[in-house]
Amino acid sequence: MWFCPGLECNVKNISIIGASGSIGTQTLEVLRSEKEIKLVGASVHSNLMVLRSMIEEFCVMNVAVTDLKVRDDAELMLSTMGYGGTVHYGAEGLEAIATLDEAQVVVTSIVGMAGLTPTIKAIEKGKDIALANKETLVAAGGLVTDLAREKGVMILPVDSEHSAIFQSLRAGNHSELRKILLTASGGPFRGKDRQFLSKVTKEMALKHPNWAMGAKITIDSSTLMNKGLEVIEAKWLFDVDYDDIEVYVHPESIIHSMVEFCDNSIIAQLGTPDMTLPIQYALNYPDRHEAVAGRLDLFKAGRLTFEKPDRETFEALDMAYEAGRAGGIMTAVLNSANEEAVDLFLKDRIGYLDITRIIGECLRRFDQRITPTLGNILEADREVRAYARSMAKG
Amino acid sequence: MWFCPGLECNVKNISIIGASGSIGTQTLEVLRSEKEIKLVGASVHSNLMVLRSMIEEFCVMNVAVTDLKVRDDAELMLSTMGYGGTVHYGAEGLEAIATLDEAQVVVTSIVGMAGLTPTIKAIEKGKDIALANKETLVAAGGLVTDLAREKGVMILPVDSEHSAIFQSLRAGNHSELRKILLTASGGPFRGKDRQFLSKVTKEMALKHPNWAMGAKITIDSSTLMNKGLEVIEAKWLFDVDYDDIEVYVHPESIIHSMVEFCDNSIIAQLGTPDMTLPIQYALNYPDRHEAVAGRLDLFKAGRLTFEKPDRETFEALDMAYEAGRAGGIMTAVLNSANEEAVDLFLKDRIGYLDITRIIGECLRRFDQRITPTLGNILEADREVRAYARSMAKG
Repeated sequence: MWFCPGLECNVKNISIIGASGSIGTQTLEVLRSEKEIKLVGASVHSNLMVLRSMIEEFCVMNVAVTDLKVRDDAELMLSTMGYGGTVHYGAEGLEAIATLDEAQVVVTSIVGMAGLTPTIKAIEKGKDIALANKETLVAAGGLVTDLAREKGVMILPVDSEHSAIFQSLRAGNHSELRKILLTASGGPFRGKDRQFLSKVTKEMALKHPNWAMGAKITIDSSTLMNKGLEVIEAKWLFDVDYDDIEVYVHPESIIHSMVEFCDNSIIAQLGTPDMTLPIQYALNYPDRHEAVAGRLDLFKAGRLTFEKPDRETFEALDMAYEAGRAGGIMTAVLNSANEEAVDLFLKDRIGYLDITRIIGECLRRFDQRITPTLGNILEADREVRAYARSMAKG
Repeated sequence: MWFCPGLECNVKNISIIGASGSIGTQTLEVLRSEKEIKLVGASVHSNLMVLRSMIEEFCVMNVAVTDLKVRDDAELMLSTMGYGGTVHYGAEGLEAIATLDEAQVVVTSIVGMAGLTPTIKAIEKGKDIALANKETLVAAGGLVTDLAREKGVMILPVDSEHSAIFQSLRAGNHSELRKILLTASGGPFRGKDRQFLSKVTKEMALKHPNWAMGAKITIDSSTLMNKGLEVIEAKWLFDVDYDDIEVYVHPESIIHSMVEFCDNSIIAQLGTPDMTLPIQYALNYPDRHEAVAGRLDLFKAGRLTFEKPDRETFEALDMAYEAGRAGGIMTAVLNSANEEAVDLFLKDRIGYLDITRIIGECLRRFDQRITPTLGNILEADREVRAYARSMAKG
């Protein structure tokens, strides 16, 4: 029989949207060491195994299952468990978890545009955001950061690069910041040419050299679109110009990013490639707690190298800069086109180089002068996806 | 005819002891860009050329010449210039500059034990210290840091490594600090064995691969004693145990040092090997101003490497740790023995390996139980030097 002790007082209450994904399960790993952080709400898409063990281990009192196809299974499972908490379903369920009265911080570890609306609702309710869903800022950075400022909520980066920047920025004032040096592993196809890329299969693209991540972000890493999305994310998180964000390919993934101040001092954050570190940092900010992530052994690492990204072979990076500089809804178009194209690639409906070709076509088709309201962004999302799909075979 | 405009109001007034040395002249270089920092006092040992140009360029109203042998020349020069400021001579002159009423910050860029007494006098008068004279903390770290706390003055590190640590520490709280990762170039004899060292000449030892510095510190870098002294300096500046200070040989001298926090996040400071950066940072702390130092190009640097120091070939490093752990006056003994031995080596009176041999003999001879009062430290200094000299030929 499922049993849960009462809520404690001196704890920080958090909810997680997208709890069964890569960042979600690593957040749970962090919570095992953080006795003063209480999980009060969690959503999964369809993974009932994770839902069950999460309820059993963390006594979560509010859960949501967003995939309506598994609703019956979920109801059966929860009633068999004798679950005493509240259960929500579908898109409204996701929003319910994002806006729970008890939660002070919402971890947005859901992937893709699906994170946008619940994140906005959470900010409207004054929740701090531990942001792993970079697509939120890519699609609607201006909207979301304006709203966060208005509501006085913090957007705490969970991406390892943005956490590194966020940590490094403590060594100076914002007015002293000159450049953000965003590091990139270069992905599995670093050093390859377009001829090679034309033959890349799904299996090849899903193998990342350093990080174990979900499928969508692993493909994005291989095309460098992930870095492009991170450039846009950094622009909004840290209020800098695109010209002041530089990408450094650093294949060892040990320096997670750097900032350069006006006095030419560069501050960098280093660590093992382990997402529990940025997750833990975001949840405890501005404090640091005893490590969940492993220790970095620099003697073992031996050497750290840096090279310029190959922007001709990996067109996605410049597409992101161009969409960012164009403004309007163009980064939302970029993001939706990329999501749809990656999905088509993962379903074997397009080839590897078709991903950026389709994104390029979408960027050319949509009008950058459209005002990036939530309505326009969501409408563009639907249109872009339909257009992207129309370019796939089968 | 020498002319000087009146003192301004909104400026930070500083004095420099040891203005003609390497750090002193680089401090002057920083002052050329820092229009809100005013040089109100400066001492030189015997370099009248620097004294003259400094008076002409910076309108310094209080100067000292510590070498009494050049007093007559100095008087003649200053009177010919029509110098209207105050002139001091000898050890009292040094103290006068260190304790000037007008100065808020004293840059201690004098080399060796000679810096100890004026630094203490400056702290007693409530001056913040921009500390380049590491020997002060090596010889009397407990005394000096206790006094600084009591007087509420800041000791701002100017050593590039300690500045890097000081900057990196801003990314966390002191209670979250776990380790200091002190980087070392490894010096010109990295990778060599003791057989090689036994044949090292003065000319060989005076060539540092990355940094242009004074003679004493260049020799100290070649023996790794400089790193040993920096370990002791770090212990006192940042209030950490010797066990929590680790030396990383990093031949490229680009990461100037790092700190590891309890969450396994490592924060590092990087830059070109240019002392104007830490000098400028100390003078403007906690602000950062437009760079005097050049920009670091990490693409050009290409790679950063790390290796463990060779503690058997370079015995000085462990001598420093042992002296530090022994406590009492042992780090003062270490420092005085090293100063005297390096001086003897520079005068061709001992061989290269005799430097550490003599230091080892001194450490064995003196009693670690002596309380490190200023009197005891100064007395030990005299005795250690005499004993060290007695071991030299000729």
